[in-house]
Amino acid sequence: MRNKSVKMQLQCPLPKLDFDMITLGHGSGGILTNRLLDSGVFDLLKNEFLDERHDGSILQLSGKTAFTTDSFVISPIFFPGGDIGELAVNGTVNDLAMCGAIPRYLSLSFILEEGLPLSEFWEVLCSVKAAAAQAGVLIVTGDTKVVDRGKGDKIFINTTGLGEVHPQADIRANRVAPGDKVIVSGQIADHGIAIMSVREGLAFETTIESDTQPLHEMVAALLDNLGGSIHLLRDATRGGVATVLNEIAAQSGTGVELQQNRIPVDGQVSSACEILGLDPLYVANEGKFIAIVTATVAEKAVDILRGFAGAGEATIIGEVVEAHPRQVVMHSAIGGRRVVNMLPGEQLPRIC
Amino acid sequence: MRNKSVKMQLQCPLPKLDFDMITLGHGSGGILTNRLLDSGVFDLLKNEFLDERHDGSILQLSGKTAFTTDSFVISPIFFPGGDIGELAVNGTVNDLAMCGAIPRYLSLSFILEEGLPLSEFWEVLCSVKAAAAQAGVLIVTGDTKVVDRGKGDKIFINTTGLGEVHPQADIRANRVAPGDKVIVSGQIADHGIAIMSVREGLAFETTIESDTQPLHEMVAALLDNLGGSIHLLRDATRGGVATVLNEIAAQSGTGVELQQNRIPVDGQVSSACEILGLDPLYVANEGKFIAIVTATVAEKAVDILRGFAGAGEATIIGEVVEAHPRQVVMHSAIGGRRVVNMLPGEQLPRIC
Repeated sequence: MRNKSVKMQLQCPLPKLDFDMITLGHGSGGILTNRLLDSGVFDLLKNEFLDERHDGSILQLSGKTAFTTDSFVISPIFFPGGDIGELAVNGTVNDLAMCGAIPRYLSLSFILEEGLPLSEFWEVLCSVKAAAAQAGVLIVTGDTKVVDRGKGDKIFINTTGLGEVHPQADIRANRVAPGDKVIVSGQIADHGIAIMSVREGLAFETTIESDTQPLHEMVAALLDNLGGSIHLLRDATRGGVATVLNEIAAQSGTGVELQQNRIPVDGQVSSACEILGLDPLYVANEGKFIAIVTATVAEKAVDILRGFAGAGEATIIGEVVEAHPRQVVMHSAIGGRRVVNMLPGEQLPRIC
Repeated sequence: MRNKSVKMQLQCPLPKLDFDMITLGHGSGGILTNRLLDSGVFDLLKNEFLDERHDGSILQLSGKTAFTTDSFVISPIFFPGGDIGELAVNGTVNDLAMCGAIPRYLSLSFILEEGLPLSEFWEVLCSVKAAAAQAGVLIVTGDTKVVDRGKGDKIFINTTGLGEVHPQADIRANRVAPGDKVIVSGQIADHGIAIMSVREGLAFETTIESDTQPLHEMVAALLDNLGGSIHLLRDATRGGVATVLNEIAAQSGTGVELQQNRIPVDGQVSSACEILGLDPLYVANEGKFIAIVTATVAEKAVDILRGFAGAGEATIIGEVVEAHPRQVVMHSAIGGRRVVNMLPGEQLPRIC
């Protein structure tokens, strides 16, 4: 498990205000909205773009730009190892990274539920700031809406990101070819199990933490060193590794073979999965990705990844094959063989 | 009132599916999510970027790019003159236009409530497509989340947009100067009154429709013809014209004087405002904007705007002054004079 303390290094005192919870008026666009923003939001996230306070930001972009969006509805909003603010930044940073891009700019849009304690909003905002600073992205434009009590759930966040595509990146599903190796960047299933451990009705004792973290530096290192040999990248969030590999197989028209005994899972996470009757292959991650690479560079790619915190267990877990196109097949430790399908229903709602 | 029929021209039949409402599984990222997307969503919104089906899109951008985000939580999701899908596209298109940009690309992110009838989701999606086609923007990346029943409200939508800044645009609050004229692009308060007319507890008989419409063509025409003489643009959404003018006064450090008898309001809207005890200056618009322009081009700007549907009543409603900096003052028809403040509390929640 990681020892995360990004947020702790920030001076982030709650601003002094004459209200202690979010009201519908804070979404009016009028005085209360402005008071909320002026009370510290703009100061906290301060940068030359945001300071313009226009309806949008003007950026100077050139060349290939990656553009991606995600809404975050995770419950609870605070969980072991992170919170919705950190997740919202890292999630979009990671989607940009999976496009082979260096993350640059984010938009930030809140849907707040009436009655949300200001202290919780503030804590999430501080996490957003810390995560953005860690990932080296600027939050350049935003929006705040408030919905009536019972029509939302504390905080939903949308982040949409822009990144500069790495000059050596050529990441496309149709570059995946038989013979390629399948790499996972570290131990899987931490995030989903961490959330389950604090969900109503599921609470169990564990020190498992979410693996939420930015992945763009790992990706940049892969591209710097191995360039076009990196064929596809995909972070294994909702639906887990199994779902992502099925998507890759479907989109590339190839088959995927996995070696079960090579898939890295933390001992505690593995035990929790057994107790809950879950296959870790389907459990969500927020700081792990799948890389499909040319076989000759696979060991090198693993070495590069292992140099990063949070990727110490990066491993080649399988390969791309011509046989059984569009199907993922797993070889078990004892010689069995089974088809691994996409996540069929819903494992755990609102995991991100 | 406009006669809007964009959506009607679209062939948009509900896809044949084995489910008729949204379930939590549709947000799982697994089979059900894929089935929902494959059932017609990807077909409906089809373009070369979306077809890649990666975590993001790769765009070729260059030069000054406007970037803006908005989440839409309007209730009800269908209202006279539009729906949340059309609003979500036009709203972001208009924020790009207010930056002096030609809208190009949008991201589209849904937060759906469990139990939402598929037919309603589909209708909104068809509106998104029609509005995007009308505004000439491509939806290039997206996301779908589902929250449990009672933790959302049918559909929330985030759109985030990218636009190419017009070469003649130089739109900034600090270009607003005493002597400039204040133009409104048409009759105000239609949107807010249309929503109120169908809200629970407020329903009253009227044919008033929302003014939701894209504004970028009007803006492009102003910039093509008058370039740098256009100092600031701001659409008068939440908080209405009064709030926007207060923001402009505050950000530019100037004063604004308004002539009450010049402010264009439709007769029915005006009556509705009287009945409800509302000042139309505070009522939301979704297809009207304020332009602050050099005095010498003001008449010409009005002429240009009046050539567009939805801007037939464009009018010079006031001017920027040195006196009373940061304050908006209105001169009434009978010679009175009053300070117009920003919207103080909440007039009507979830207006956009």
